[in-house]
Amino acid sequence: RIVDEIAAVLSSRGILKDKKVIVTAGGTREPIDPVRFVGNRSSGKMGYAIAKAAAKMGANVVLISGPVSLPTPQGVRRIDVETAAAMRDAVLSEYDDSNIVIKAAAVADYRPKQAAVHKIKKTGDSLVLELEKNPDILSELGQHKQKQVLVGFAAETQDLLLHAQEKLTRKNLDMIVANDVTLPGAGFNTDTNIAKLIFRDGHIEDLPLMSKDEVALVILNKVSQLL
Amino acid sequence: RIVDEIAAVLSSRGILKDKKVIVTAGGTREPIDPVRFVGNRSSGKMGYAIAKAAAKMGANVVLISGPVSLPTPQGVRRIDVETAAAMRDAVLSEYDDSNIVIKAAAVADYRPKQAAVHKIKKTGDSLVLELEKNPDILSELGQHKQKQVLVGFAAETQDLLLHAQEKLTRKNLDMIVANDVTLPGAGFNTDTNIAKLIFRDGHIEDLPLMSKDEVALVILNKVSQLL
Repeated sequence: RIVDEIAAVLSSRGILKDKKVIVTAGGTREPIDPVRFVGNRSSGKMGYAIAKAAAKMGANVVLISGPVSLPTPQGVRRIDVETAAAMRDAVLSEYDDSNIVIKAAAVADYRPKQAAVHKIKKTGDSLVLELEKNPDILSELGQHKQKQVLVGFAAETQDLLLHAQEKLTRKNLDMIVANDVTLPGAGFNTDTNIAKLIFRDGHIEDLPLMSKDEVALVILNKVSQLL
Repeated sequence: RIVDEIAAVLSSRGILKDKKVIVTAGGTREPIDPVRFVGNRSSGKMGYAIAKAAAKMGANVVLISGPVSLPTPQGVRRIDVETAAAMRDAVLSEYDDSNIVIKAAAVADYRPKQAAVHKIKKTGDSLVLELEKNPDILSELGQHKQKQVLVGFAAETQDLLLHAQEKLTRKNLDMIVANDVTLPGAGFNTDTNIAKLIFRDGHIEDLPLMSKDEVALVILNKVSQLL
């Protein structure tokens, strides 16, 4: 396939050789009790495509993944996590000597205040679930950034550019990949995406409908220029 | 494998020939907004094992499935659903001419009162989620039972027999498969199970640790005797 050939060319040019790349992927699960959870929609396909492409380009790739049903790409070290808190711990433990961090995971912003130890029995007609904010991993990475190139994602259903640009600035990112998940071909569990790449200087690149493998190559090529 | 041979024997005896069997499997997803949901843990493995075994025994099998990452077993008609409400509609539309209904799905008891049309932005430090009761599919099937043999599941973390027996009676089931999901080898996403089969007359069969394929054969063999 063409994308494999392009990846081979980029790899032969060694654009990510000996770079340590952290990729997060998939959604998190925040337990309500042992059987119920609050989840985020994410097939993990975008993050896995990036991890695969980065490994082909010669990078040392760590993939920190929520529960997904995808095989681990060749040459990639994968760490499985379930909650946002576990993802934070895994990312921070890998952060210091990393060169690039690409946070493609859909991390829960909120978690139940208390996870019940035993299954909650359904008694009342309604149930009030109190949620508290999860740690904001990307903001924390942005605050402690040294040499790292930090890339975030913004999956939005409205005011895409506004939300994405605000997130880029507030979290001290170098690039943000924004996509409107309501567009056909850009939603969850698709093999394609329609992304906009937004940079710190305000410059925006609009990508057409592409496979997630192709989007991964474009993202990594851009990131390599920011190193 | 031995289970395939046993299934072949039961099938050659035609114990489910021309019977219509509805199996539900997997967990449901109840939307909070377009990206977040309340989910139930379930790999779908137990239900898919039952659907596969029933088809081998000659039954006409309809598998009504929440989001899982399992292939459709051969000879099985599969209907994909996401919410408890959609699962209810699918089950009811297949119910009247069915002979056996086995509800292995982990259906959400509660759903968010209102699903937000757009992604909820994280503003406050906490969020209160109001949940309301979902329709109880199994109770509804029990109330409208004609000739059907109705089998439920009880996945519990404590007081297993008490909860399971109460559920059997209250929902007018013919058999309930109870398992303590805190036991090693009986949890979610395992390939094995440790089940207790509980019948209307109060009689209980304790099964040892078995593969889910083997548990499926035992369940279907028992069910065929209740037809």
